[in-house]
Amino acid sequence: MITPRTDHLIDLALEEDAGLGDVTSRAVFSADHHSRAVIEVKQPELVACGLEVAARVFARVDPLLRTRLLVRDGSRLKSGTAVLRIEGPTASLLTAERTALNFMQRLSGIATLARAFADAVKGTGVRIVDTRKTTPGYRALEKYAVRCGGCFNHRSSLGEHVLIKDNHIAAAGSLAEAVKLCRIAAPHAAKVEVEATTLAEVREACRAGAGVILLDNMSPAQVRAAVEVIAGRAIVEVSGGVRFATVRSFALPGVDVISIGALTHSAPAADLSLTIQPARAGR
Amino acid sequence: MITPRTDHLIDLALEEDAGLGDVTSRAVFSADHHSRAVIEVKQPELVACGLEVAARVFARVDPLLRTRLLVRDGSRLKSGTAVLRIEGPTASLLTAERTALNFMQRLSGIATLARAFADAVKGTGVRIVDTRKTTPGYRALEKYAVRCGGCFNHRSSLGEHVLIKDNHIAAAGSLAEAVKLCRIAAPHAAKVEVEATTLAEVREACRAGAGVILLDNMSPAQVRAAVEVIAGRAIVEVSGGVRFATVRSFALPGVDVISIGALTHSAPAADLSLTIQPARAGR
Amino acid sequence: MITPRTDHLIDLALEEDAGLGDVTSRAVFSADHHSRAVIEVKQPELVACGLEVAARVFARVDPLLRTRLLVRDGSRLKSGTAVLRIEGPTASLLTAERTALNFMQRLSGIATLARAFADAVKGTGVRIVDTRKTTPGYRALEKYAVRCGGCFNHRSSLGEHVLIKDNHIAAAGSLAEAVKLCRIAAPHAAKVEVEATTLAEVREACRAGAGVILLDNMSPAQVRAAVEVIAGRAIVEVSGGVRFATVRSFALPGVDVISIGALTHSAPAADLSLTIQPARAGR
Amino acid sequence: MITPRTDHLIDLALEEDAGLGDVTSRAVFSADHHSRAVIEVKQPELVACGLEVAARVFARVDPLLRTRLLVRDGSRLKSGTAVLRIEGPTASLLTAERTALNFMQRLSGIATLARAFADAVKGTGVRIVDTRKTTPGYRALEKYAVRCGGCFNHRSSLGEHVLIKDNHIAAAGSLAEAVKLCRIAAPHAAKVEVEATTLAEVREACRAGAGVILLDNMSPAQVRAAVEVIAGRAIVEVSGGVRFATVRSFALPGVDVISIGALTHSAPAADLSLTIQPARAGR
Amino acid sequence: MITPRTDHLIDLALEEDAGLGDVTSRAVFSADHHSRAVIEVKQPELVACGLEVAARVFARVDPLLRTRLLVRDGSRLKSGTAVLRIEGPTASLLTAERTALNFMQRLSGIATLARAFADAVKGTGVRIVDTRKTTPGYRALEKYAVRCGGCFNHRSSLGEHVLIKDNHIAAAGSLAEAVKLCRIAAPHAAKVEVEATTLAEVREACRAGAGVILLDNMSPAQVRAAVEVIAGRAIVEVSGGVRFATVRSFALPGVDVISIGALTHSAPAADLSLTIQPARAGR
Amino acid sequence: MITPRTDHLIDLALEEDAGLGDVTSRAVFSADHHSRAVIEVKQPELVACGLEVAARVFARVDPLLRTRLLVRDGSRLKSGTAVLRIEGPTASLLTAERTALNFMQRLSGIATLARAFADAVKGTGVRIVDTRKTTPGYRALEKYAVRCGGCFNHRSSLGEHVLIKDNHIAAAGSLAEAVKLCRIAAPHAAKVEVEATTLAEVREACRAGAGVILLDNMSPAQVRAAVEVIAGRAIVEVSGGVRFATVRSFALPGVDVISIGALTHSAPAADLSLTIQPARAGR
Repeated sequence: MITPRTDHLIDLALEEDAGLGDVTSRAVFSADHHSRAVIEVKQPELVACGLEVAARVFARVDPLLRTRLLVRDGSRLKSGTAVLRIEGPTASLLTAERTALNFMQRLSGIATLARAFADAVKGTGVRIVDTRKTTPGYRALEKYAVRCGGCFNHRSSLGEHVLIKDNHIAAAGSLAEAVKLCRIAAPHAAKVEVEATTLAEVREACRAGAGVILLDNMSPAQVRAAVEVIAGRAIVEVSGGVRFATVRSFALPGVDVISIGALTHSAPAADLSLTIQPARAGR
Repeated sequence: MITPRTDHLIDLALEEDAGLGDVTSRAVFSADHHSRAVIEVKQPELVACGLEVAARVFARVDPLLRTRLLVRDGSRLKSGTAVLRIEGPTASLLTAERTALNFMQRLSGIATLARAFADAVKGTGVRIVDTRKTTPGYRALEKYAVRCGGCFNHRSSLGEHVLIKDNHIAAAGSLAEAVKLCRIAAPHAAKVEVEATTLAEVREACRAGAGVILLDNMSPAQVRAAVEVIAGRAIVEVSGGVRFATVRSFALPGVDVISIGALTHSAPAADLSLTIQPARAGR
Repeated sequence: MITPRTDHLIDLALEEDAGLGDVTSRAVFSADHHSRAVIEVKQPELVACGLEVAARVFARVDPLLRTRLLVRDGSRLKSGTAVLRIEGPTASLLTAERTALNFMQRLSGIATLARAFADAVKGTGVRIVDTRKTTPGYRALEKYAVRCGGCFNHRSSLGEHVLIKDNHIAAAGSLAEAVKLCRIAAPHAAKVEVEATTLAEVREACRAGAGVILLDNMSPAQVRAAVEVIAGRAIVEVSGGVRFATVRSFALPGVDVISIGALTHSAPAADLSLTIQPARAGR
Repeated sequence: MITPRTDHLIDLALEEDAGLGDVTSRAVFSADHHSRAVIEVKQPELVACGLEVAARVFARVDPLLRTRLLVRDGSRLKSGTAVLRIEGPTASLLTAERTALNFMQRLSGIATLARAFADAVKGTGVRIVDTRKTTPGYRALEKYAVRCGGCFNHRSSLGEHVLIKDNHIAAAGSLAEAVKLCRIAAPHAAKVEVEATTLAEVREACRAGAGVILLDNMSPAQVRAAVEVIAGRAIVEVSGGVRFATVRSFALPGVDVISIGALTHSAPAADLSLTIQPARAGR
Repeated sequence: MITPRTDHLIDLALEEDAGLGDVTSRAVFSADHHSRAVIEVKQPELVACGLEVAARVFARVDPLLRTRLLVRDGSRLKSGTAVLRIEGPTASLLTAERTALNFMQRLSGIATLARAFADAVKGTGVRIVDTRKTTPGYRALEKYAVRCGGCFNHRSSLGEHVLIKDNHIAAAGSLAEAVKLCRIAAPHAAKVEVEATTLAEVREACRAGAGVILLDNMSPAQVRAAVEVIAGRAIVEVSGGVRFATVRSFALPGVDVISIGALTHSAPAADLSLTIQPARAGR
Repeated sequence: MITPRTDHLIDLALEEDAGLGDVTSRAVFSADHHSRAVIEVKQPELVACGLEVAARVFARVDPLLRTRLLVRDGSRLKSGTAVLRIEGPTASLLTAERTALNFMQRLSGIATLARAFADAVKGTGVRIVDTRKTTPGYRALEKYAVRCGGCFNHRSSLGEHVLIKDNHIAAAGSLAEAVKLCRIAAPHAAKVEVEATTLAEVREACRAGAGVILLDNMSPAQVRAAVEVIAGRAIVEVSGGVRFATVRSFALPGVDVISIGALTHSAPAADLSLTIQPARAGR
């Protein structure tokens, strides 16, 4: 999942952390000092994500740094597992360390949280999807992390598919009119989605031919009622107020998708650290 | 706290979310449709941060969008407080909405967590500082959020001051030698900081003339013993394994600084939302 | 349709044309020399597009250049119609002239061609859509021009919706298997589209539950047969080998969409030019 | 002809098309799936251009994609000729396909049109040159394509050499005065060029010592008369209103250069396509 | 002379100096503290250059900073002359100060040195021109400074006009052959320039029809002899080994141009400083 | 010392010099023409700096250009020493030549001047440091050159450590108050520095607990008196009015640091040139 944008973010990050070099390593290490290091998991369970990005950070700092990925993104790992091996000039290695870990801790944090949510609805056939509540500039990377954790992606931009909310309905005059206007404007391969907060709106959305209906901030009981109304005429998305503790109670028959903003906006950082390995005898 | 980097991040964010326009708003709103909106706090307590950034997002999307800041960054607010007012073309307003909120939710999240930590050590004279565990590219913005929350900043890059860790000590041969090398290399106005994990290392650091000693992963009891050894000869920083629940127990006499990575890497997003206001009669 | 990308392209363009200034204007015009100018249509019929971009070019070169849009993007205009008025320092005005016109001639060229295609299928209910065959870097602007000409947009990126082609089918083992794999991976609000070159494939696509079937390089008679097979079970897209002269013969009942690469890759430039207006007496 | 600008355009293009990955290929191809492909000519005659750019696109998407150029830019090719071979991970190959082709179709389109113009004046000693009517940001690439087609480049920016037009003459007071001012300001190695629309202006230009005289929108008969007036005292450029059908009639004795905006602003895209090759037995 | 490149350099500069804010001003000045300041000349004689760039730096840091240019670029000034007035928030003003001065000190330094060279050959009709030995990235700005100092510009890039050096001659087989090849490739409005180090080469260059002959590292006597050989058949440029003390001795009859690398690569910085003005009573 | 910023500057430089290719080399060299070249010192004494940057310039222009560093940055060299060997396509080599040399001449110029200053105070224990008076955008590279010349770096940005000047003192009310405010705001590992112009201010600074006192524009006698007052309570920096001829007279006992703006703002370019080597027989 390396795109020009990824490289761009790596450059921004290295510039802010290491643009003036590393005064400590400069003082201590000669240019010839080489080391081997590994990045390891430091928390009981973690879903790896961002290994290729981390490898790219090391290569960007110094092409003499060689990396080897020891697991694949998406792997579920235990504490102590080594995920990336790095070898090369020590000063360069330490210059890149924090930036590489900063990418990995965020992406693995998201993947780990996504995995927990995916597991929580396992067997129900419901998909957990993310939202557009991502770190600005990190949309593609964070959505990739969500997939690594076994969840799915909602639309990735305002241009991608239609999602009609209350303000649009007010401007259009009615929900039905908003759906009609959007069906004309939308790409022919995209379904029109509309937010509904009451059963009346759910009914109107069905009649208007919405392809996806987003049940906004409803309780499980309300969701159940809405599913009955919809009766298969549209894809059903549950959104708003769903937490890890309650997600299973929303994964009801007839629900297709549950969207969770916290996947990307509030995942705690994963704990990973880099250790220089003792030199082996005889080298 | 708007710098060229901030504008750069805003552009990356708008490009990914709105680079193809907003297909829904395009379908529904005429170019002449104007609205007024406010961004409001949706959680019991929040420290505002990122208001100027958000205002800049709206202006970037459309210079016709006018914003007014209703509070200052750093303000402690209750649920329901309006923080930013926006007025202008509705389609532009909704195009900018999510990106503006994405900046604010992260920065206010950090400021709010920082405020909680600052309050937890209130009256002890200890400073809570951040670390370099920041979102890649967001170093300056996230450190600003930390200050808005009443905490302080540690070094902001590898080039700024010396921090000697175990790998540096190993390469230099001894802690004392590492300190000596770094005092030569360091800028004359920067103190040399060294990590110590045992009392023996603390003693060696003092003898070597370290300006700051970082007590790494010590218990409160160990910190107490280290402070006695140091006896005012160096600034004392406690780091590693400090959580919100335990921070007060580390804020001991003689401790100057406690560094907390979670301030920037694991702050949950603050809850803020934008509401279009009903048109006033007579307009 | 001004996004950060648009500004970025404007900067690239000005840098290459005017990065070293305008040696001719520098020699001839004093800094105080001001002029008024208009951009006018120089071909019998033209659909305007890119006026705001052009205005932005002038403002970027010199904030003292004032512009006024005389028509809206999408207007159908006759030769001689003035579309943009500019006023300010003459040297700046001429420095910006060519870059502004270069944007307008391409975007208006696309809009004008799109309008011709849209008119050619008028009354049939068929939509003409573009493809991903756009000038690299200009995707959003060129798709906007297509809309200004009364046509519609196909997907705008590889990430937006699924389009299964022969290579995907080969890799998956069968068309049905490819559709199945893609329905899992696709965003829930996107239909799965699949390319079919024979009636057998059309049948298989229908059975597999494809949401959109692209009839690739078929004759009108083959399209007619395919439409019968599909019988409303999927959206029908005709693609490949359709030219302006033949487009109407493909706009058959049951066809929803015809995609035309030439809209963006081979539209001839529109003819527009800038004229400095004679100074008015009494100024 | 790869410069930093070329890489920059490639990044812009990949970001817009593949910034979120390729949802179809992701669903269908495993990471281990490799293919060989060729890009081939699909129109009767084509002058190749952009092969190195295309190769760079593939390498940018995935360093594991290996490319081999089968012809050189500038080669005149028949339908069916393979121009570029690509081998490597299938998903990466298809992710890069459209962007690589989009560069090639435009550049080869320009080179092909330029070749037709160059051939049309073959044997006359007249040079066909381009103008500044290029796609914004593509100046260097498009001028390179013009050369690949056997034509020549006019000035590439406003800073490069002087070209005096009517507005400059008006500001200077007279053509002679404009030439005088510009000879002072122009780089010493650049000739001063001036636009003339009448024989009177041609005479004045000669007397003023213009190095190049641009005959603007003249008929072949007028050009002939102007050439007689100039009598070798300046380089003669014919510009405006010259089309493919009429270009030969302007390639008169005494004419040095004919400039053609259409070379870059209205060249239809060349037809090229990528085909995955069937796997060979025994691999 | 503000182009997108200028803004780009300003952003790079502000990011490196003020990307993390100004810790001193932050500590001392409230957001409401406003000041007035002037930038003044601190050396006996100076030619101003970079005022608009400096004004742009202040505006970039804070749009509330208002600037007024008190002289024009190119003005010859005495010590103590105020050149720019700034008014607005003190913290912003001091944040921008150093970056603004850094641009001005370099550009004014170049303009001042250029003025000295221009004066040294006054009345001889010889032009002093710069070279391509400029600060990487600053080509346009430094060439502008050269013009502000009353000198002229040589070619600004490798693409602009032909300059044949010894390596080209060796590759072509002979000077005459190199000139011939280049006359074909060069833009029709550019003269072909060739370097000559001996009178034999000068003769060959004349015969080959070179438009400009660069006399490389010749003494005044050799230059005199070369001028006689050339006898008006080409523009004469003297280059190499010319210093301020000797420039007048090279400004011989028949010499058109003397190129001086030191104008841009070794001009000492001009001395300018910013002073906050005492608040006036009664405000 | 290659960071993303370095690559960014290289791209800016290549774009401006070679964005349109090299018209001369294009005319003369076939794509197959290869050469070997060296860059050599052309002045009596020079401290090398920028070799890796130069190597990177060649690689950026053409990956087929191979370079070998013959000395290390910081080496003190005599005229005629070869510092970099390059081998590969001749046209590419000459395209890169000027840009590579432009980086090296500035960086080596700074290193050479820094070495002279460092030598001038040899044996005194005083450090010569640079200032923030650097070429905008070149802060990191120029500070690196200063270190290569045996001098040291002062703070590299406004965010790094506190330096209190007269305007800050005025705003705070007194020097003591300014120091107090800044000690609160400053990073805990940074000393607070304050500028003093009189002995009274020196005394106040000591009492206020300043970590570094900058003696601004004092004579050696005044410096001596100030050192006595400070008596080891703070680091002593001498700044302002120190030239190469006088630097030794300021390197008095008790002085720790002398800062010299000229190191970066007025170092004359070092003289280096590239020579194509005659082909060896038998190749």
